[in-house]
Amino acid sequence: MKLNNKINKIVFIGMGLINSSLARDLKKYNFYNTSTAYSRRASTREKIKNLNLVDIVESDCKKAVIDADLIIIGVPVDSYEVILKKIIKYIKTGAIITDVGSVKKEVIKRASKIIPKNISFVPGHPIAGTEKSGPESGFSGLFKNGWCILTPGNNINKKDIKLIKIMWEKVGMKVDIMDADHHDLVLAITSHIPHIIAYSIVGTIADLEFSIKKEVIKYAASGFRDFTRIAASDPTMWRDIALLNKVSIIKALELFKKDLNALEQAIQSDDGEFLFNLFSKTRKIRKDIT
Amino acid sequence: MKLNNKINKIVFIGMGLINSSLARDLKKYNFYNTSTAYSRRASTREKIKNLNLVDIVESDCKKAVIDADLIIIGVPVDSYEVILKKIIKYIKTGAIITDVGSVKKEVIKRASKIIPKNISFVPGHPIAGTEKSGPESGFSGLFKNGWCILTPGNNINKKDIKLIKIMWEKVGMKVDIMDADHHDLVLAITSHIPHIIAYSIVGTIADLEFSIKKEVIKYAASGFRDFTRIAASDPTMWRDIALLNKVSIIKALELFKKDLNALEQAIQSDDGEFLFNLFSKTRKIRKDIT
Repeated sequence: MKLNNKINKIVFIGMGLINSSLARDLKKYNFYNTSTAYSRRASTREKIKNLNLVDIVESDCKKAVIDADLIIIGVPVDSYEVILKKIIKYIKTGAIITDVGSVKKEVIKRASKIIPKNISFVPGHPIAGTEKSGPESGFSGLFKNGWCILTPGNNINKKDIKLIKIMWEKVGMKVDIMDADHHDLVLAITSHIPHIIAYSIVGTIADLEFSIKKEVIKYAASGFRDFTRIAASDPTMWRDIALLNKVSIIKALELFKKDLNALEQAIQSDDGEFLFNLFSKTRKIRKDIT
Repeated sequence: MKLNNKINKIVFIGMGLINSSLARDLKKYNFYNTSTAYSRRASTREKIKNLNLVDIVESDCKKAVIDADLIIIGVPVDSYEVILKKIIKYIKTGAIITDVGSVKKEVIKRASKIIPKNISFVPGHPIAGTEKSGPESGFSGLFKNGWCILTPGNNINKKDIKLIKIMWEKVGMKVDIMDADHHDLVLAITSHIPHIIAYSIVGTIADLEFSIKKEVIKYAASGFRDFTRIAASDPTMWRDIALLNKVSIIKALELFKKDLNALEQAIQSDDGEFLFNLFSKTRKIRKDIT
């Protein structure tokens, strides 16, 4: 398999928002000769067929990976272990496994116990998505102008890393390579903590007594409305992220709680200057982002 | 002044996002005969003139309110007292004062000490806005399909309340009337707390060391990106809201912190069931909102 040649067989394990978007784009860009998707649920397999996302839809993950050159795992991160154990014996020498998960260190630790040396594991994380899930929610162009972070181990073939890099660049992403530990800390701050907090605050509201909950929903203003969108993300996916990136999330959460207490204290003691300075500082951050 | 007649002179005190949007809409709907805007800053007055939002732009708030039938206060809530004290003697008997502020109880307490009985105060809160501020950020149509909450005291003329109701309905809002205390609690939950939390978390990131802050901004994923938008809201406006709605905000914040601690505890103890249940419950709330 040369870099400038198309790969022959690509296999998608799981067909959620990310993998189904990737399947749409790679098909468009003619990245492979033949494609297979595995999904556990019959209803999801039916959707994949109807959407015409791949050549073959498989209900048996072992059969799906036979002769695969590239396998892309797109299931919730806590399910990697179970699925890898099932398929590993059916994967040919020289194949490449990559993934799209939002946690890397724990995933690598678990996968490296299962994946033998004659198969390359190039962990990847395309930073993209919406709060929707399922193959019907994917779309071509999701990855355009986003960042994809790869966290391959030192023993991984440069050529295999390059192939994964080229794949993400083909669908419009910029690609960075970094250490898995560092990835997990950065993502805890930029993505996991905002989700945890949005889930928490929307959960607080879900538990309010009926009459006030009804009003909060009725008058949902911009702040809360945004939080509900974030907190509508896939529960299984985010349960797994919270558990597998526990260390970095707790670390970032402690930092955030400390700052929230300081802010609460400033409100309590009518410290307008503290509030104005903080609210001005955060406005500047926005300018760096857009 | 009859309800089915146009009002003669309308005065906007402050010309930020809300008042300037309202000015655009009321002009379009031919709601008044003549309009005046007061703004403290020369640069803002220049913008108002260039945008052609009102007939007269005044640098003297006392002169602005002379002969006014309707005065709409659209400055940060902590500034009402100072400005009301300045203008009150120049306002004619029978005039109506309303406002667009996000806090009601404390505002009413302060205003009622200044406003005499021959002038009606009908406090209002159009639930609308973006993170932008200033007259150049307003636009026609901002209020369409939103809710406006009025919190008039029991001694206010029904006819005057009706006029304010009609004004907001003209620009596309649905209008509810409620108790100021209740308004402040509902808004603390649906708007103020999400802002306080977004400010806090973006503030946490602003204080990180340069290299990691740079990366968090570079890889800003959906969660954090939304928070930065919320935390880019006007610092003076939100300082005032935080201080004037302190009691309800602290109450809601305590509730939220309790729930965040429970969520953190669930992550610590690998309680996947707790996480899955919470993350599923919050997804349902979203369905009620959109």
